[in-house]
Amino acid sequence: MAVVGVIGGGQLARMMIPAAIALGIEIRVLAEARGSSAGLAATQVGDYRDLDTVLAFARGCDAITFDHEHVPQAVLRALEAAGAAVRPGPDALLYAQDKLLMRERLGALGIAMPDWARIESADDLAIFLTDHGGRAVVKTARGGYDGKGVRVVDDAHDADDWLAEGAVLAEELVMFQRELAQLVARRPSGEMRAWPLVETVQRGGVCAEVFAPAPRAGSATLRAADELARTVAEGLGVTGVLAVELFEAPDGRLLVNELAMRPHNSGHFSIDGSRTSQFAQHLRAVLDWPLGDTAAVAPVSVMINVFGSLPEASIRTALAHQPAVAVHAYGKDARPGRKAGHVTAVGDELDDTVYRARAAATCFDS
Amino acid sequence: MAVVGVIGGGQLARMMIPAAIALGIEIRVLAEARGSSAGLAATQVGDYRDLDTVLAFARGCDAITFDHEHVPQAVLRALEAAGAAVRPGPDALLYAQDKLLMRERLGALGIAMPDWARIESADDLAIFLTDHGGRAVVKTARGGYDGKGVRVVDDAHDADDWLAEGAVLAEELVMFQRELAQLVARRPSGEMRAWPLVETVQRGGVCAEVFAPAPRAGSATLRAADELARTVAEGLGVTGVLAVELFEAPDGRLLVNELAMRPHNSGHFSIDGSRTSQFAQHLRAVLDWPLGDTAAVAPVSVMINVFGSLPEASIRTALAHQPAVAVHAYGKDARPGRKAGHVTAVGDELDDTVYRARAAATCFDS
Repeated sequence: MAVVGVIGGGQLARMMIPAAIALGIEIRVLAEARGSSAGLAATQVGDYRDLDTVLAFARGCDAITFDHEHVPQAVLRALEAAGAAVRPGPDALLYAQDKLLMRERLGALGIAMPDWARIESADDLAIFLTDHGGRAVVKTARGGYDGKGVRVVDDAHDADDWLAEGAVLAEELVMFQRELAQLVARRPSGEMRAWPLVETVQRGGVCAEVFAPAPRAGSATLRAADELARTVAEGLGVTGVLAVELFEAPDGRLLVNELAMRPHNSGHFSIDGSRTSQFAQHLRAVLDWPLGDTAAVAPVSVMINVFGSLPEASIRTALAHQPAVAVHAYGKDARPGRKAGHVTAVGDELDDTVYRARAAATCFDS
Repeated sequence: MAVVGVIGGGQLARMMIPAAIALGIEIRVLAEARGSSAGLAATQVGDYRDLDTVLAFARGCDAITFDHEHVPQAVLRALEAAGAAVRPGPDALLYAQDKLLMRERLGALGIAMPDWARIESADDLAIFLTDHGGRAVVKTARGGYDGKGVRVVDDAHDADDWLAEGAVLAEELVMFQRELAQLVARRPSGEMRAWPLVETVQRGGVCAEVFAPAPRAGSATLRAADELARTVAEGLGVTGVLAVELFEAPDGRLLVNELAMRPHNSGHFSIDGSRTSQFAQHLRAVLDWPLGDTAAVAPVSVMINVFGSLPEASIRTALAHQPAVAVHAYGKDARPGRKAGHVTAVGDELDDTVYRARAAATCFDS
């Protein structure tokens, strides 16, 4: 039986478990703590920054993959040196870990992006602001996610605290029409499969809703997004699922916002809405197994995140009011603003499907 | 978090795990042995016939349900007396455990069945054979499944070995057109939801293929099967999933062959082919949660069982040849004739969907 080790015990690892069960894959999770979201498959609890812990965990695994992108490069490289199949590998993960390197590499691949610059000082930022209408997005090169490590600035000294730690990334504030995401999976032997382009709606820098496929997207846009994601996956040597977060500019151009090298919130719809979910595909890809069909099971899927908590009483209410909506709970302790679960509706028509998904999600409003 | 305890660690318990993960339900399995199919969720290994073992297992569970119907009545009743929510309860399970009682009860409910008789002796059997053209099906009242405990006889002494143990059931040999199965779920508070009628193809007394919905079934047949299953579920007080195996007689009448009070092989298609799978529905039903929509996600689903083993190389071959077919492995040791997994294809059209499912299943022929 093939064995996949997942570093990190969050909801992404949790949602890999059903896919592993179906495919007869043994899944082992290195969790940060007891009672984690993926606790059912946790074979070890420990610190993913500790090389000995990770080496012990990796023993006997056919592939090592991730719930998050925070494992230090030194640990990743030592794992590879010890013979582990690390997927995605450290060379690829580096671009997900360091936004400055990511921008440089995407530039070399000819991928369209917002204007950006490496900022070493307040003077650098002053120049960038002057060149971009007095406002910019500043991001820490490392460690940011879900709106953390991101700031909109209009003063050259607004990033002084971060600059004290090192260089940051400045990007033009793109006046986009909307945000999109393109998911693709790639296996080490090269096969790639992409899902249809989706629209993502962010609130407070965090994904709130996803519409699959992206409404009103023309065939040229769909093709461009698909090709772009494949170029990035191949160019960066990604194995497993790659999520490319995109801005759709007013002129229709697609600009790369962020990359994630793992199953991604924008692909959760695929559990209920696709022939092959992103979690099943990720396991197949990291094991270098043949990839699955990514076609939709219905014309429309709508995914809505639930934050804070999913009390059992609310789950029952949602199931009673919307018997065709799928509820996914992450088994986490309640915490304000934390992703606690999601709901997915699939249907024939956008308005009705959005209505049903929102009606279910509303049951979790406190 | 709601807790469901499942007695038995086979593939039915295994396939409840993904449903529990999605719904945020904690699932605990009392397995017969280490390394069972549902081992990932096994919290205890022990003998389900031992009352102390089962009582200890049941502590802290909001509902107790089953992977099989073999738990002795004395254990079931002691569990209930200790305050456990046993679902289905012992009164219902009795009819799944004893085919003579089942026939009597179905008769009282006015359900159509093959002609049958309680046989206490070779003389009884001789009379039954004379009345039914010299041939009959004889079944042990208890303990039979998957073709075991079933025998076609043409001599009054063909069941002497079984009669030495007690009364048996004789049934007329029905010259049916085909076999069908109707699944329904019922929760303690009364809500019921049925899936569309399916056709099952048996080989050697074991389910080989399932077509959902049953091809060429008219609306009268669909309605009759739905009503029949609801009558049985309510009449027998079943909670959870009930599978009613049916013969379709040459004149179109539906005759009840067997009952199963748990998720059933004829409902495996629902994992990939229905909005709510039989495993999710079973968990919802035994917890008395609102039931889910049983509508199909595609016009046709075809499920084919795989026997013996699912070697990893064959899984890869099947996935490569049929990227849209779902492969389900049960994580069991190889054994000739044993159900080791299944494949499901969903599609718009029967012939193509059957072709794809069989093409995938063929990869496991040794």
